[in-house]
Amino acid sequence: MERFQIGIIGAGRIGRVHAENIAKFVPQMEIKTVADPYMSPEAEEFLRGLRIPNLSRDAEDILQDPEIRAVIVCSPTDWHAEYVIQAAKAGKHVFVEKPIDYRLERVHEAIDAARAAGVKLQVGFNRRFDRHHHAVYEAVRSGRVGKVNLVKISSRDPEPPAIDYVKVSGGIFYDMMVHDFDMARFLAGSEVTEVFAYGAVLVDPAIGEAGDVDTAVVTLKFANGAMGVIDNSRRAVYGYDQRVEVFGSEGAVMDVNDTPTNAVYYGADGSIASPCYKIMWDRYTGAFAAEQQAFAEAVLNGTEPLVTGEDGLYPILIAAAATKSLKEGRPVKLSEIEAI
Amino acid sequence: MERFQIGIIGAGRIGRVHAENIAKFVPQMEIKTVADPYMSPEAEEFLRGLRIPNLSRDAEDILQDPEIRAVIVCSPTDWHAEYVIQAAKAGKHVFVEKPIDYRLERVHEAIDAARAAGVKLQVGFNRRFDRHHHAVYEAVRSGRVGKVNLVKISSRDPEPPAIDYVKVSGGIFYDMMVHDFDMARFLAGSEVTEVFAYGAVLVDPAIGEAGDVDTAVVTLKFANGAMGVIDNSRRAVYGYDQRVEVFGSEGAVMDVNDTPTNAVYYGADGSIASPCYKIMWDRYTGAFAAEQQAFAEAVLNGTEPLVTGEDGLYPILIAAAATKSLKEGRPVKLSEIEAI
Amino acid sequence: MERFQIGIIGAGRIGRVHAENIAKFVPQMEIKTVADPYMSPEAEEFLRGLRIPNLSRDAEDILQDPEIRAVIVCSPTDWHAEYVIQAAKAGKHVFVEKPIDYRLERVHEAIDAARAAGVKLQVGFNRRFDRHHHAVYEAVRSGRVGKVNLVKISSRDPEPPAIDYVKVSGGIFYDMMVHDFDMARFLAGSEVTEVFAYGAVLVDPAIGEAGDVDTAVVTLKFANGAMGVIDNSRRAVYGYDQRVEVFGSEGAVMDVNDTPTNAVYYGADGSIASPCYKIMWDRYTGAFAAEQQAFAEAVLNGTEPLVTGEDGLYPILIAAAATKSLKEGRPVKLSEIEAI
Amino acid sequence: MERFQIGIIGAGRIGRVHAENIAKFVPQMEIKTVADPYMSPEAEEFLRGLRIPNLSRDAEDILQDPEIRAVIVCSPTDWHAEYVIQAAKAGKHVFVEKPIDYRLERVHEAIDAARAAGVKLQVGFNRRFDRHHHAVYEAVRSGRVGKVNLVKISSRDPEPPAIDYVKVSGGIFYDMMVHDFDMARFLAGSEVTEVFAYGAVLVDPAIGEAGDVDTAVVTLKFANGAMGVIDNSRRAVYGYDQRVEVFGSEGAVMDVNDTPTNAVYYGADGSIASPCYKIMWDRYTGAFAAEQQAFAEAVLNGTEPLVTGEDGLYPILIAAAATKSLKEGRPVKLSEIEAI
Repeated sequence: MERFQIGIIGAGRIGRVHAENIAKFVPQMEIKTVADPYMSPEAEEFLRGLRIPNLSRDAEDILQDPEIRAVIVCSPTDWHAEYVIQAAKAGKHVFVEKPIDYRLERVHEAIDAARAAGVKLQVGFNRRFDRHHHAVYEAVRSGRVGKVNLVKISSRDPEPPAIDYVKVSGGIFYDMMVHDFDMARFLAGSEVTEVFAYGAVLVDPAIGEAGDVDTAVVTLKFANGAMGVIDNSRRAVYGYDQRVEVFGSEGAVMDVNDTPTNAVYYGADGSIASPCYKIMWDRYTGAFAAEQQAFAEAVLNGTEPLVTGEDGLYPILIAAAATKSLKEGRPVKLSEIEAI
Repeated sequence: MERFQIGIIGAGRIGRVHAENIAKFVPQMEIKTVADPYMSPEAEEFLRGLRIPNLSRDAEDILQDPEIRAVIVCSPTDWHAEYVIQAAKAGKHVFVEKPIDYRLERVHEAIDAARAAGVKLQVGFNRRFDRHHHAVYEAVRSGRVGKVNLVKISSRDPEPPAIDYVKVSGGIFYDMMVHDFDMARFLAGSEVTEVFAYGAVLVDPAIGEAGDVDTAVVTLKFANGAMGVIDNSRRAVYGYDQRVEVFGSEGAVMDVNDTPTNAVYYGADGSIASPCYKIMWDRYTGAFAAEQQAFAEAVLNGTEPLVTGEDGLYPILIAAAATKSLKEGRPVKLSEIEAI
Repeated sequence: MERFQIGIIGAGRIGRVHAENIAKFVPQMEIKTVADPYMSPEAEEFLRGLRIPNLSRDAEDILQDPEIRAVIVCSPTDWHAEYVIQAAKAGKHVFVEKPIDYRLERVHEAIDAARAAGVKLQVGFNRRFDRHHHAVYEAVRSGRVGKVNLVKISSRDPEPPAIDYVKVSGGIFYDMMVHDFDMARFLAGSEVTEVFAYGAVLVDPAIGEAGDVDTAVVTLKFANGAMGVIDNSRRAVYGYDQRVEVFGSEGAVMDVNDTPTNAVYYGADGSIASPCYKIMWDRYTGAFAAEQQAFAEAVLNGTEPLVTGEDGLYPILIAAAATKSLKEGRPVKLSEIEAI
Repeated sequence: MERFQIGIIGAGRIGRVHAENIAKFVPQMEIKTVADPYMSPEAEEFLRGLRIPNLSRDAEDILQDPEIRAVIVCSPTDWHAEYVIQAAKAGKHVFVEKPIDYRLERVHEAIDAARAAGVKLQVGFNRRFDRHHHAVYEAVRSGRVGKVNLVKISSRDPEPPAIDYVKVSGGIFYDMMVHDFDMARFLAGSEVTEVFAYGAVLVDPAIGEAGDVDTAVVTLKFANGAMGVIDNSRRAVYGYDQRVEVFGSEGAVMDVNDTPTNAVYYGADGSIASPCYKIMWDRYTGAFAAEQQAFAEAVLNGTEPLVTGEDGLYPILIAAAATKSLKEGRPVKLSEIEAI
C-alpha cells in the first residue's frame, strides 16, 4: 500500500475530527504535522494521543515541507482560500473545508490556483459520502430512476447555532442550506439555473433580529429541466433530520432519516422507535471518514475527487441567489449572480 | 338509528362510487332516486343491483321530491354550482363533488345559496377522510406538533389523464393539485396568502402542447407564518404516491405511501415490498365511504361538515394563484386573485 | 352476474358479521333467511336493517327451503357438525365456522357427508384471506421463496377471553392456536407430522386454575421436511399482534403487524407509530368479507374452496397433538392422534 | 486517560480484527505484543501497519511480560482454556474468544483459575454489544417490557462454513446457535432450564453426511418461567439475518435485520430496499470494537464484564442439551448436562 504524508492546518473541532479519522481509517495518509497558531492544550493532548509527530503554530511548517504531499485546510473560513492558494503554489494537493470562501472572487482564485498547479482540490461536502445519501446517488447514476424530474431534500438541525455565529455566518443559505445545495446538484446531475426562496423566523426571534431566518423552503430549477425543493429548519425537537429523494421517469429513490438503532418498543401507547441523532458528529461519523479515504484515493490514483473545486463554488452561487430571492421576493437566476 | 332519503344527480363513475358506498356503508342515508339525463345501460344495471328504487333522466325528480332531504351532486363540473343552488333553494342539504366550479363567482353564489337556505354544504375533498392523512391531521390538531412551521405534500399519479381532459380541466393546478391545496390548508389550520409555482413538461410533450405542465412544485405561505410545499407529477411508474408531513415546534408527523399489503420478500437481489396502488379508487376506497358517513352525520346532528363550502372555494383561489404564478414567473398573493 | 339464495344458521356475533359482509360485499349471495332459536331483539333489529326478508327461530326453515342453495353455519360449536351433515343431505353447499367440531369423529362425519352429497364445504379460517397473510402465501406459491424450510407465526391477543370460555373451549391450542395451525399448513404447503409444545401460565393464574395455559410456543415438523414455530399469548398490552414468515431456499417472505394507520409522530422522546388494533373484528374486517366472496365463487364456479373440510380437520388433529405434547412433555406424532 | 498494555495471542482472522479495533478505537489499551507460532507474512505486515511493536512466535513473550496487564486470547479453540489459565496465573486479565472450550471441565477450570487469581475474564460474545440488540437489552432491563414472557431469535448465515469445519466444530448448536443461546440468556435475564431441538438437513446433504444439521429450531424454558425460541439456518440467500424480540407483560421490543443503507428504490415492480449484509465482519463491525472498549473499562474500573466466564459456560451447556435433545427426540433438562 502506497502511503504519503500530509499536514493539517487548523486544530479546531473539525481539524481534530479529520485528524482522528485519518489516523484511524486512512492508512494511505500519514499525518506528519498539524499547525494552528492558537492551538489549545486540549487540542495538543488530543493530537498527541493520535501519535502525530509535529505540532506547530506556523502553517509554513506544512507549506514549506517538501515531504508533505497534501494539505487538509481546516482554518477559519476567511483563510480557506488563502491556504488553498498557497498549498497549490507549493505543489500540494488540497482538501479544504466548506465553504471555500464567501467571496466569489476568492473561490475562483482558489480553484484557478489548484488548476494552474495541477493539484487535486477536494471540498468538504461530507454528506455526499454518507452511506444512505450515497446509495441514493448510486441508484440515480445507475439509471434506475431514469431521467430526473424532482429532487427533494429535508434538512433540520436539533438546535440553532449561537446567535454570534448566525451574525457572521452569512445566513441560513450559506451556513446550513449550502450542504443541501451541494446535495441537490449532486443528485440531479445538473446545474441549478434559478432559485426561489421563502423564509421565516419561526424558531427564535433573536435569529430574526440578527438579520436571518431560521426556517426556509427553497425551490430550484436545473439546467436539465428537473426541479428541486429543499426545506431547512434550525430546530427539530426530535433531533437531526436528513432525508433525500429523487423522482424520475423510471422510479424514485429515497432514504429515511438515520437513527442510532432500529429497535422498536411496542407498548400500550403505540410503538416507539429509537430517538433520532442529536449530534451532527454522530450522524455523519462514517461520512467524515469516507471523504478522507476518497481524498487519499484521488491523490494516489490521479483521479478527480468526488467533490471538486467547482463543487465548492456552485453552492455558494446558489446561496447568493437564494439570499437575493428571499430579500427581493422573486425568483433569481444564477446568471444574475455570476454577473456580479 | 335515524334515516333520511337522498337523491344522487349524475350516474357517471363518481356518482356510482358514491351510490355504492352509501348503499353499503351509510345506513343513515337511503338512496331514493338517481337522476342522469344520459344514464347508460351499465349504470342502470349497476344501480339496480344496489336496489335503488327510482332511476330517472330528470334531476327535477330529485329537486322537487319533498321526501328527499339531501342531494349528492355528481354532475359534470359545469353544472355543479347550478345544482347546489337549486338544491339549496329547495331546502335540501348538499354534497357536491369538487370543484364547485372553476368560475369563482359561481362558487360564491353556490356558497351563498347554501348559507341563505340554512342547509349543509359539503365538498368532495375525500382525502381529508383517508385514514392515514386523517391521523396526521388529528396529531396536528391535538397539539402534538406544536405551532405548524411547514406542510409538505407529495402527490403523484400513475398515469396522466387523457389529453382531451387536460385541454378542458383547467390544468394541473385545478384538476390535480387542487386536492393538495385543500390538504395543505387542512393540515396547516391556516389560509394560504401567497403562492409560487414552478412547472415543467417532463412526462409527455403532448401535455405541453395542450398548454399545461405535467410536473409542478408549488411553495406556499400561510397566514399563521407557516410555509408549505407541494409536488405533483402526472406519472409515477411505481403507482399512486401520496404522502403528507407536518413539521412544527414540538415535532413532526407524517405518513408513508399506502400500499395494498405490507408483506415483504427478501431475496438475493434485496428486499422487495408490495407494489403501490395503481388505481385511485383502490387507494382511496375507505375515504370515499367515510366522507359520506360524515355527511350523514353533519345532516343528522346539525354540525358543520369537515369540508365546507368555503373549503371548496379556497383551493380554487390557490389554483388560480398558482396558475398566474407559473405564467408570470413570480410569487402571487391570494389577495390579487380575490380582487378579480 | 349469477346470484343464489342462502340461509344463515345462528344470529350471534359471528353470524351477524357474516350477514353484514355478505349483504354489503357479496352480491352473488342473497340472504333469504337467518335462523336462530334464541334470536335476540338486537340481532333481529340488526338483521332487518340489512333487509333480510325471513328471520326465523327454526333452522328447518333453511334446511327445507328448496330455493336456498347454500348455508352459512354459525351455530354454537356443538352443533356445527350436525348442521353441516343436515345441509349436505339437503344438497346445500356449506360454509361452517371453525372448528367443525372438537370431536374428531364428528369432523370426519361432516366431511364425509359433504363429499357424499357432492356439495362444497368451506371452513371459516378467515385469516387465509387477510390481504397481508395472503400476499405471503402467494409469494410462497409463486416459488419465490423456493423450497420451504421454516414457517414462523406470532399470534397474540390483546386480552384473554372470559374464564368461563376458557373452561369449555378445549384450551389455547383449540380455541386460539388452531388458527395458526391452519396458517402453518397453508403456508408450508405440507402436512404437520409431529408437534412439540411448551406452555405456561404467565398472564393470569385463573387461566391455570381453569386447566389451561395462556402462553405457548409450539414447534412443528412437516412432511416435506420443513419446520415450523408458533407463539401465542393471551395478552399483548399493545394490542392484536399477527405476523407470519416463511423462509426457504430462495428467500424469505414475511408481513409485519397490521396497524390502523401508518402515520408516525416524531417528538422529543422518539418516533411513535399508530397503536395496533385492539379488536379482532377490526383487524380482520377485510378477511371476513373475502372469505364469503370466495365461498360464493367456489359455489358458482364449482371450484374447490380455499379452505376445505380437510383443512378444518387437520388443525384439530394438531391441537390434539399439541395438547398431548404439553401434558406429556414430549414430541407427539400426528399419527398417534389419527390412531385415536 | 489511564492506559495499559496488552498482548494478543493468535494472529488469525479474529486476532487481527481485535488488534485493528483496539488500535483504532480503544485508546485505553496499547497493544505491546502479538504472539502466534504460525504467524503468516500477511499477518505480520498487517500488524506492523497497526504499529504494534513486538511480533512474536511465543506466547510466553506475553505471559511472562510484567508490563502486560491483560491478554486477548484468539488461539485455536483447543488452546483457549489453557491460555486463560496461564494468563490468570500470571495475574493478567483475560478476554477470550468464544467458546472457552467444548469440554465442560476445561471451561470450569478456566473460570476457576480467573476467579482464584482475581482477574477479569470476558468472553467474546460480541453480539451483546451490537447497537440494535443492545438497545433491545436496554429496553428489557429498563422494565419497559415488564416480566419477560418470550424471547425470539432468528439467526441465519449467508453461506454454510466449509465441510471440514462442520466436521470438527461440534455442530450447529456449538458453532452457530451458541451465540443465540448467549443472547437468549442475556435478554431473558434468566437461566435456561430445559431445551427441545428440531433440526434438519435442508441446505446441503454434505452437512448431513458430516453428521450435522443445517437448519434448526430450538425452544427453551427459563428459570423465571419465560420461554424462548431460536431458529438457525446455514444459508439465507438474501444474506445475514439477525433479529431478536422480547415479549413481556408490559410490551414487546424487537429489532429488524440491519442493512448497509436505508435507501429504497420504488420502481414498476415494487419497492426494493438495500440488500442485507453478506459478510459477518461487516454486520458486526461496531460490536467487535465495543466489546473491547467494554473490556478496557472493566479492567480499569474493576467492574464485572458484561460477558463473564459463567456467560461463557452456559451457552455450552445449552448447546450440549440441544445436541442431546436432537439426538434423542425429547426435551432435555440442563440439569442432565450439569450432571455429566
